[in-house]
Amino acid sequence: MLYSNLSTNEQGHLTIGGLDALELVKEYGSPLMVLDENRVRENCRIYVNAVKEYLPKGSMPLYAGKAFCFKGLYSIIDSEGMGADVVSPGEVYTVSAAGFPMQNVYFHGNNKTDEDIALAIEKKLGCFVADNRDELISIDRIARENGIKQRVLLRLTPGIDPHTHAKISTGKVDSKFGTAIETGQAMELVEFALGLENINLEGFHCHIGSQIFESDPFCDAADIMLKFVADVKAKFGYEVKVLNLGGGYGVRYVESHPQIDIAANIKKLGEHIAADCEKFGIVAPAILLEPGRSIVADTCTTLYKIGNVKTITGYKSYVSIDGGMTDNPRYALYGSEYTVINATKADKTADFVCTVAGRCCESGDLIGEDIAIASPERGDILAVLTTGAYNYSMASNYNRICRPAVVIVKDGETRVGIRRETFEDLIKCDM
Amino acid sequence: MLYSNLSTNEQGHLTIGGLDALELVKEYGSPLMVLDENRVRENCRIYVNAVKEYLPKGSMPLYAGKAFCFKGLYSIIDSEGMGADVVSPGEVYTVSAAGFPMQNVYFHGNNKTDEDIALAIEKKLGCFVADNRDELISIDRIARENGIKQRVLLRLTPGIDPHTHAKISTGKVDSKFGTAIETGQAMELVEFALGLENINLEGFHCHIGSQIFESDPFCDAADIMLKFVADVKAKFGYEVKVLNLGGGYGVRYVESHPQIDIAANIKKLGEHIAADCEKFGIVAPAILLEPGRSIVADTCTTLYKIGNVKTITGYKSYVSIDGGMTDNPRYALYGSEYTVINATKADKTADFVCTVAGRCCESGDLIGEDIAIASPERGDILAVLTTGAYNYSMASNYNRICRPAVVIVKDGETRVGIRRETFEDLIKCDM
Repeated sequence: MLYSNLSTNEQGHLTIGGLDALELVKEYGSPLMVLDENRVRENCRIYVNAVKEYLPKGSMPLYAGKAFCFKGLYSIIDSEGMGADVVSPGEVYTVSAAGFPMQNVYFHGNNKTDEDIALAIEKKLGCFVADNRDELISIDRIARENGIKQRVLLRLTPGIDPHTHAKISTGKVDSKFGTAIETGQAMELVEFALGLENINLEGFHCHIGSQIFESDPFCDAADIMLKFVADVKAKFGYEVKVLNLGGGYGVRYVESHPQIDIAANIKKLGEHIAADCEKFGIVAPAILLEPGRSIVADTCTTLYKIGNVKTITGYKSYVSIDGGMTDNPRYALYGSEYTVINATKADKTADFVCTVAGRCCESGDLIGEDIAIASPERGDILAVLTTGAYNYSMASNYNRICRPAVVIVKDGETRVGIRRETFEDLIKCDM
Repeated sequence: MLYSNLSTNEQGHLTIGGLDALELVKEYGSPLMVLDENRVRENCRIYVNAVKEYLPKGSMPLYAGKAFCFKGLYSIIDSEGMGADVVSPGEVYTVSAAGFPMQNVYFHGNNKTDEDIALAIEKKLGCFVADNRDELISIDRIARENGIKQRVLLRLTPGIDPHTHAKISTGKVDSKFGTAIETGQAMELVEFALGLENINLEGFHCHIGSQIFESDPFCDAADIMLKFVADVKAKFGYEVKVLNLGGGYGVRYVESHPQIDIAANIKKLGEHIAADCEKFGIVAPAILLEPGRSIVADTCTTLYKIGNVKTITGYKSYVSIDGGMTDNPRYALYGSEYTVINATKADKTADFVCTVAGRCCESGDLIGEDIAIASPERGDILAVLTTGAYNYSMASNYNRICRPAVVIVKDGETRVGIRRETFEDLIKCDM
């Protein structure tokens, strides 16, 4: 099995955190997303411990909630000692409704409206990651109206291309996010921010992309950002307290993907940062990291019921499931790969090669092509692994399909994390 | 302007159905989708009239609700004399909740579960488009349990490739949809269906794809399907009553797209069908067509508020809006083109070339690149045209962004078609 929390029981069924996948579907219906709480906690601890051991004092990992955002997850994240980053007023609202300590929340995004900023300040959100000058002006004004001095980081683009998929690469100079160091615009922005009365500039942020399996791009980003920190100190005498290096560590979706040792990577990054700070003659800032995918992706499995199994003579076979791009649009968007297992026959040889198709009226609604699974039949339960990140969070009601339930398993117990949508939910906004 | 219902008023603002776009945003907020009811009706009438004039007796156009499915739209569709096709139990539920005459509803999809079939029969849905043998068996059994004989069409793949985008081309033999004629499997399925007691086989269905601007692919499909109808008659003595040729007529999103004369195309198709029927010696079946995109796409305009305008020195400019891939994922999915207008300066020259970026924390969240608009500034209203099809229907809450409101305009009056989602809606399923 791809992950240690997955196994096969005496009936030959897939188990998740020790529980029979078929029994879970019997109790909660399908499609069903099953989230293993212990695995979330393990993933958090890798970051929390490595950050504590290898990065400067005050460093902290923040959970990037855009990967998977719901109330129940935030209490787990908080109890493991992580902060959170949010990207919209809806995420501000969710993290606040979850009772998360708001001083540990960072607000990202390339376009925060005045209403968003006001909501975040009302909810006593800790720190804004300001994207640009317009946004700084708004934050400063709204902070003044509220009689506070607002903590702010500036989002900068270091000009790094981590050679990942173009759609999820964000550190390049040519980006909708942030302000570029290379063009001199970042330095102008720092000067401007330092002159704003209701802004407490804590430091800088960058994010170079996602699904990165090597530490070099992060070290390269640290080089550029810390050099910039030194330049800022030389120019304005201002000492940066916080450097947020974003997220991006890769996750293994299929056997052929590399497995990354995150603690070792953070150790290497910490050494690199220490050397940089000595070279540039600056005090090491606290480092923030923003893992999202690597906290949740491999904690979740989606269980579907197989409907039709169709072999087109002389062509190929299609296995249709009762979900698809509505709960997992990543194949449609990026052609992402997944590991797929017939949970009903998890002990059998996976030798039936097929295209796994979703139920939407759209040819592109596939989970994957040329996937080998054990003899699929109508009624079998199909498990798609590694669906914790950017699945439910990107889910839609396309074709007016209800979004699935998310059930949390922990130490043999289950509870509902997100209830299944109903038909009544689908028409709730139709006037 | 791309469409006749759009214009510019004395203030230089864009008007939609005669109403000032900025006033609409002032009243209903942004992002806002504005649907012009009269234009929906005009589009319906093109089909209803052409089908009546040029196709065999009993022919009917069905609105393909997957393009845009909400209760308020179905009453317009019904009053124009169109039927509807649905693709999921959620669409069955919606069309039924709208009070639509259920005998005119056709149920599609490559994977109807037993629960879906039971729901549709409970709602007295007119006709199933059965995808394959497994589904036929289920329909027959559930119809028997309900003491009815169920009207059914069989979805067949004629083996047509209309040279459109691979993801929206569906008529090829190698498809997740339907049963192939070429392989002999379709003929076997007909024989099987004719032997089922609670199935009333009315005919066949095919759908060759979408965004098709020529009539040849439809005529080619008719050739194959009518030849098959003749073969079926010769083999089983069974006369097909209904032939559903699906949807697919193209819509003009930008000036460079061709403009299609749908009535002329249907006329040509009608002549072609008549000639085919004579050649094959069969009675012309009633023809069903399933327009979705061409009924709603050009009836809707999405209005966004511009946030940041960012010029990266030596690179390019980004204009950020308060929506994006969450309400319109078509650029992210297919790289689809749109016409974009600064609604605040609709009378000014569009000479500022920029990338229009959505507000999601995702580099791929764009509406378009290298788009020329009139000098954008924070607070301006940006109009994206032709957003009626596959925008709201594919919308998500990615980044926990609320889905927009849809306001319907008609003869200078406005009403809410779909209310805006609230933050409370976002967390309604979080336990």
